[in-house]
Amino acid sequence: MTVAAKTPVKTPAKAQVKTSAKTASSKPSKTQLDDLVLANKILFHFNVVDAFGHISVRDDRDPQNQYLMARHLPPGMVTAKDIVTFDMDSNPLTHTDMPQMSERFIHGEIFKMRPDVISVVHCHARPLIPFGTAKGAKLRPMTHMCGFLGCGVPIYEIRDAGGMTDMLVRTALLGKALAETLGDKAVVLMRGHGATMVGKSIQETVFRAVYSMDNAVVQMQAHALAAGGEVEFLSLEESEKSLGGRNVPRSWSLWKHQMTAGR
Amino acid sequence: MTVAAKTPVKTPAKAQVKTSAKTASSKPSKTQLDDLVLANKILFHFNVVDAFGHISVRDDRDPQNQYLMARHLPPGMVTAKDIVTFDMDSNPLTHTDMPQMSERFIHGEIFKMRPDVISVVHCHARPLIPFGTAKGAKLRPMTHMCGFLGCGVPIYEIRDAGGMTDMLVRTALLGKALAETLGDKAVVLMRGHGATMVGKSIQETVFRAVYSMDNAVVQMQAHALAAGGEVEFLSLEESEKSLGGRNVPRSWSLWKHQMTAGR
Amino acid sequence: MTVAAKTPVKTPAKAQVKTSAKTASSKPSKTQLDDLVLANKILFHFNVVDAFGHISVRDDRDPQNQYLMARHLPPGMVTAKDIVTFDMDSNPLTHTDMPQMSERFIHGEIFKMRPDVISVVHCHARPLIPFGTAKGAKLRPMTHMCGFLGCGVPIYEIRDAGGMTDMLVRTALLGKALAETLGDKAVVLMRGHGATMVGKSIQETVFRAVYSMDNAVVQMQAHALAAGGEVEFLSLEESEKSLGGRNVPRSWSLWKHQMTAGR
Amino acid sequence: MTVAAKTPVKTPAKAQVKTSAKTASSKPSKTQLDDLVLANKILFHFNVVDAFGHISVRDDRDPQNQYLMARHLPPGMVTAKDIVTFDMDSNPLTHTDMPQMSERFIHGEIFKMRPDVISVVHCHARPLIPFGTAKGAKLRPMTHMCGFLGCGVPIYEIRDAGGMTDMLVRTALLGKALAETLGDKAVVLMRGHGATMVGKSIQETVFRAVYSMDNAVVQMQAHALAAGGEVEFLSLEESEKSLGGRNVPRSWSLWKHQMTAGR
Repeated sequence: MTVAAKTPVKTPAKAQVKTSAKTASSKPSKTQLDDLVLANKILFHFNVVDAFGHISVRDDRDPQNQYLMARHLPPGMVTAKDIVTFDMDSNPLTHTDMPQMSERFIHGEIFKMRPDVISVVHCHARPLIPFGTAKGAKLRPMTHMCGFLGCGVPIYEIRDAGGMTDMLVRTALLGKALAETLGDKAVVLMRGHGATMVGKSIQETVFRAVYSMDNAVVQMQAHALAAGGEVEFLSLEESEKSLGGRNVPRSWSLWKHQMTAGR
Repeated sequence: MTVAAKTPVKTPAKAQVKTSAKTASSKPSKTQLDDLVLANKILFHFNVVDAFGHISVRDDRDPQNQYLMARHLPPGMVTAKDIVTFDMDSNPLTHTDMPQMSERFIHGEIFKMRPDVISVVHCHARPLIPFGTAKGAKLRPMTHMCGFLGCGVPIYEIRDAGGMTDMLVRTALLGKALAETLGDKAVVLMRGHGATMVGKSIQETVFRAVYSMDNAVVQMQAHALAAGGEVEFLSLEESEKSLGGRNVPRSWSLWKHQMTAGR
Repeated sequence: MTVAAKTPVKTPAKAQVKTSAKTASSKPSKTQLDDLVLANKILFHFNVVDAFGHISVRDDRDPQNQYLMARHLPPGMVTAKDIVTFDMDSNPLTHTDMPQMSERFIHGEIFKMRPDVISVVHCHARPLIPFGTAKGAKLRPMTHMCGFLGCGVPIYEIRDAGGMTDMLVRTALLGKALAETLGDKAVVLMRGHGATMVGKSIQETVFRAVYSMDNAVVQMQAHALAAGGEVEFLSLEESEKSLGGRNVPRSWSLWKHQMTAGR
Repeated sequence: MTVAAKTPVKTPAKAQVKTSAKTASSKPSKTQLDDLVLANKILFHFNVVDAFGHISVRDDRDPQNQYLMARHLPPGMVTAKDIVTFDMDSNPLTHTDMPQMSERFIHGEIFKMRPDVISVVHCHARPLIPFGTAKGAKLRPMTHMCGFLGCGVPIYEIRDAGGMTDMLVRTALLGKALAETLGDKAVVLMRGHGATMVGKSIQETVFRAVYSMDNAVVQMQAHALAAGGEVEFLSLEESEKSLGGRNVPRSWSLWKHQMTAGR
């Protein structure tokens, strides 16, 4: 089962510098800005992120060479004017006089490796931490909301690529190693750190972030209840079949409603 | 112990098409609309439902042949104008130009099989998921609030009726299989999916949904505390005796107060 | 260690009927009404009670023969005009045309048996349920906030006094059995039902209710973390020594502030 | 690894009484007052403290001889006018007619022993209690947010210094024993009581308090998921390397935003 296309192709970022230069003078689309700001609010509301974590999206103006992501700010404080345009080497093309997220390479390197990915979330969602640190634990789909976990959830060990670090994906090299560990999957756990999710839209990636966390909580309870016994997960076929449907737009419509109405 | 009548009788839905046609031109009673909208809000407030899940009630105008349920919308966003009239085959008689819940067959097929049931809730309440997936786990009544669990809580394995699916009860056939698994009980767990509760009123069904979830949380804690040792549940007789009383109206009065006052 | 006086004395309720009759025509003190209403709000805010549970206090006008408690209402909805005066046999002296709590005998019978007790809380606080149902579990003081648990926490098995029931303390007989199980302690757990706490003031009893629940949560975590190994509780001497101090008024001042300010 | 300077030096508090006397007539800086009040609100908001717990800071006007801390009040109720100036023997130099925190010696004695420490939090944060009471449990860094735990987290057993007490650090002697147990570390757990955190600023100490609690929750889950198996913590080198960075100011900016906007 592959969530992504079979053969990831590295986007020829260098070859399109001209386009980048051009679009940097225009503004991102209002839709993308609004959705990205809303996504930041939703991720904060559901404790997927706290002061840390970020979400990016390929820039509609030049999706192969640029992505959008907030400058160095807690997600809960992000507004449209804080959205920076980055090239795929994660250099800021706007807001160049302001501090940027040190882990932006997570986004750029995944976009390079995964042409099918439109949006990336990086977070420290608490319930996912145990699955990256307890030896032998595996995050697996408990319900049809989490079919995207059915293809497997790899764990990124930063020591393999970087030895003893401060755990942060601070370089293109470390970002590339993370993208390679992610492979064609939807979610990669990061040992002693957090997780990264990808999807075909801001909405899908936010959905996967929220429901990965949700799945982790329920799975921990199921293992405890089973007391060492078996837990029945979705089969691979069930996972694949449950990937479609109206789950993402329905969730997004509710979350948008909640964020707007203050719930 | 039976929660339902001994002999479920299939309602002759076809035979009453005329009545259906007639009543579809009138409006559902204001009481039913108000209660159903409030029920949606309560279920959302207590995290019984999130963007998913639904509640139905037999239509007072023609309870044998029609039921009411919201159109395809997150429960937290439902208003009176979103309430659709369905026939017992789960065809919409109103709002026919709008998308409907794909799992409405849960409701129609249970109403057909269980003349004693007036209202049905379907949800993905998180704490119930482990009881449907951890092998050998059984949801049992921890306190007198949950006597309705005392008669047993069957688990619906969709693979038995549908093989490998997307887990959704998308057809009358799957809905009928669920109704059969439910039998004369109050709650049926759905492996890798959620749960469905029934009751003699909107109020009772909402109560059972909230307290099933509540019971699950406490029961998981009790098993963990017992560390493999015994947990003392309500006996069958205690369960039966605690079914009456003023629990349902008292809870409903509080919840109505909370939803109105914003708590 | 005794929380109560050594020799419980049955209050001669019958002998003072005249006084009762007299005071029923006056009004409870504003202080007691205000504190009791506030206590209801606090217990609801901290999920000690939901739609169920109640708190009583000996009536200042005739503390040996009367107590005050809300009529049959969810605690979160109680106002001063809902406070009923009861005699010690739990007959209402006011609001006689309205439904009363069926478990009011918990309060009357404890007041009869425990002259040192001024206020009683009955609740279904969730984290306490496992300690009354998991065989061998014992609620014990994790910190100095819960020294009142150090003298022991008995468990009331209603089957001993009433056989198979609906679990409710609906009669003076069952209330008396509960009071006897409580003995001179501060808290009694009720199997398959909830718990009852007593104290020398409304404030102290509310404090004990909130912190019993709190202790239960932490103790369950400690046992899980110890994984079958030992947990170090407060010693009897530490429990006794930590009973005094300013804990109760400090908590009450905060809670009053929160309830008033809406937090 | 040392969080503090290698050789703690006892501040010669007595020798500077004149300075103390002088500064007591001026007012603390507005910055320190504002930050300290905000810190109280943040600690309350995140349930690090409830009605109990306190935070102090060395007084900018005379950091070697004085510290600032609220008078005897629940943290959630503290305003600028409640901030008391103390000497290092924990005598109040202002608000002398009002009750003071009985455990203020925690702060004074740590300031004496640790010249590198600018701010101290004492709390009863619930998730930390199990780590101080379950035999053999050790709080260790789950992620790079908690590198400050990597140097070790000692446990203070008050029985060693005070025998059977009411668990409170009511004297300079007990405070000194706590400071000695803390040593050069960032956090000390207190058996049957709570924890104390130190840092180089109000912001850092609040950060450590919030994330110690957070780490405890995740670590308990990881041990449960590992079911007795191994959990991979940050290595000592990873802990040390992750100590720097922008974590503290970023968190503080969010928390300040939340407290101001009411979130």
